[in-house]
Amino acid sequence: MSLASELNPTARLLMGPGPSDVHYRVLKAMATPVIGHLDPQFILIMDELKEMLRYLFRTKNELTFAVSATGSAGMETCFVNLLEPGDDALICVNGVFGNRMSDIVERCGAKLIRVDAPWGSPIDPEQVKHALEKCNPKLVAIVHAETSTGVLQPLEEIGKMAHDVGALFLVDTVTSLGGTDVRMDDWGIDAIYSAPQKCISAPPGMAPVSFSPQAVKVMEQRKTKVQSWYLDLSMVRKYWEGAKRVYHHTAPISMVYALHEALRLILEEGLEVRFERHRRNHELLRDGLEKLGFEFIVDTKYRLPMLNAVKIPDGVDDAVVRRRLLEEFNIEIGAGLGDFAGKVWRIGLMGCSSTENHVFLLLAALKKIIGDK
Amino acid sequence: MSLASELNPTARLLMGPGPSDVHYRVLKAMATPVIGHLDPQFILIMDELKEMLRYLFRTKNELTFAVSATGSAGMETCFVNLLEPGDDALICVNGVFGNRMSDIVERCGAKLIRVDAPWGSPIDPEQVKHALEKCNPKLVAIVHAETSTGVLQPLEEIGKMAHDVGALFLVDTVTSLGGTDVRMDDWGIDAIYSAPQKCISAPPGMAPVSFSPQAVKVMEQRKTKVQSWYLDLSMVRKYWEGAKRVYHHTAPISMVYALHEALRLILEEGLEVRFERHRRNHELLRDGLEKLGFEFIVDTKYRLPMLNAVKIPDGVDDAVVRRRLLEEFNIEIGAGLGDFAGKVWRIGLMGCSSTENHVFLLLAALKKIIGDK
Repeated sequence: MSLASELNPTARLLMGPGPSDVHYRVLKAMATPVIGHLDPQFILIMDELKEMLRYLFRTKNELTFAVSATGSAGMETCFVNLLEPGDDALICVNGVFGNRMSDIVERCGAKLIRVDAPWGSPIDPEQVKHALEKCNPKLVAIVHAETSTGVLQPLEEIGKMAHDVGALFLVDTVTSLGGTDVRMDDWGIDAIYSAPQKCISAPPGMAPVSFSPQAVKVMEQRKTKVQSWYLDLSMVRKYWEGAKRVYHHTAPISMVYALHEALRLILEEGLEVRFERHRRNHELLRDGLEKLGFEFIVDTKYRLPMLNAVKIPDGVDDAVVRRRLLEEFNIEIGAGLGDFAGKVWRIGLMGCSSTENHVFLLLAALKKIIGDK
Repeated sequence: MSLASELNPTARLLMGPGPSDVHYRVLKAMATPVIGHLDPQFILIMDELKEMLRYLFRTKNELTFAVSATGSAGMETCFVNLLEPGDDALICVNGVFGNRMSDIVERCGAKLIRVDAPWGSPIDPEQVKHALEKCNPKLVAIVHAETSTGVLQPLEEIGKMAHDVGALFLVDTVTSLGGTDVRMDDWGIDAIYSAPQKCISAPPGMAPVSFSPQAVKVMEQRKTKVQSWYLDLSMVRKYWEGAKRVYHHTAPISMVYALHEALRLILEEGLEVRFERHRRNHELLRDGLEKLGFEFIVDTKYRLPMLNAVKIPDGVDDAVVRRRLLEEFNIEIGAGLGDFAGKVWRIGLMGCSSTENHVFLLLAALKKIIGDK
């Protein structure tokens, strides 16, 4: 009996908001034989993964590992472990992912205090300062690279403000990690999460996270159980840390392999070289798009190199052009989300998708489809 | 810079409680190029996956898919979507996974009513009947194949009792699915979850689930938000169902590929042939182990074919033998969990690990290590 044929999808150039193109060495790594999740050889691989993640997050935090689910579960892991019912949480919102944080805060039974900025603009530290005069939050959370708008958020000043009032500083680095500088320890970040399918260029399926000693202390002093069994770090960490590893759930072995190889590729390239590559290809794309008449959503100063949000020109049909890019040229770009649906395209140059060739091909295809204006 | 070498784990014979050996076609499937999680070609692959899962669960349920995390998150998905604070839930406990269900029920703010049986014995329907006379639960939950003890639980009678009092019937088929008969619709199961790394023989990383129309109705009538954003099916199902797929989180593309290929292999073999293979190899192992002086924990009638729980003979050092099996013969078997730690071995013959060769090799290795008694 058969209900499906062998997988045979068309290879694409992934230039949307993620996943990005995956290196053949990462694809090959997933064909490594599956071994047991408590096998001493697998424990060694986990330890290497933790060490490489520390390097990428630029942290010395002991509690650094990858959650066994996708990036959004990394977000949820941070909030459900740090918040208890009745806590106050200050969330900075200037796009889809700040909204998502707010939703999770309410599901934790915590009190949500929002600081909003317009979509496409960063959060102004002055706003946070004013908000902090009127509340006493357990944590301040913000998105480093808003995937829905293309904004790069400066973090240091807001991090200091959070610490000045005794709050933890929680940062979403889903789209920034591996593509631009992330300095967890230098910037005073207490809890951080990311995802492999953006600038790390591994397939989606895990969520790198790290917690400062202060964040760990807050978790250890909880009075209530974490609402999620699956994401409860008081148990999960006994599997990822220590001499004797305790079974909690079965880790996604092949995803660990993929992330391990993707991190090895990043270390081989070197962080500075990689960040410079992302900046250079962003500029190449920007120049080409501007020649075609596109306008960027975000001011130059706050523009992400790996996620380019541009206005869809008047008279250009959003769905038609994206479909033609996909069907005729095998190029995927991202639609607008939320407030930006139908108005904005999100063009990703992430990890292995950040190359001159990707830029040239997209520009040529766009030129052919919508014409040289 | 380098912090880790290329992956080079020793290939093992996986004869523990999971993961099981993964077919080379499944490993190869993960090397399929990653495409976008909203790519029309990926949507088709998701639809095929759903159809194959329906075949495996023997259900017509529309809401049948795979959660983007490992099996334990499948368990959590069922409970957090069906229970609300203040609901009563009757949980049958005769091993680790019934205990885990109970823990999750309490984290949902629901009232836990337990029916306990000794580890190694099934739940007696009479016990459930008595318990139901004294409570009015929203759901009755039970484990079909207790991975911690090797017990196969008859389901039909308890399912009828649950329905007679208007409760939903929730069943854990993590270890049974793909290795022995699971008939969701015939047995009146309203919510079911499983995992790919047991008798399906795909790598861990997703959790197949299915929900009856009645269970869907209960979800749709919730008064409170699901406590987990990541597992909230009111949003997740908009990505897995319908003409227009709505982004919720980025699906683990390569894990979907792996599960897709593993399900194709199951359909090619045929369910009856596959179940018979599991039964036959279990009997071969049983005969061999009994010749070596091993005793099974579970009565013949309730013994799982894919998970063989045996007493560790007197004078045999648990850790030493398991380490020698792994180091000298590359064979992994499972330690005892919970009450059975140090007293029991769990020998898996799951999916691709259920072959005559696996049985012969394990018996030969055991004979060499602990001697012919």
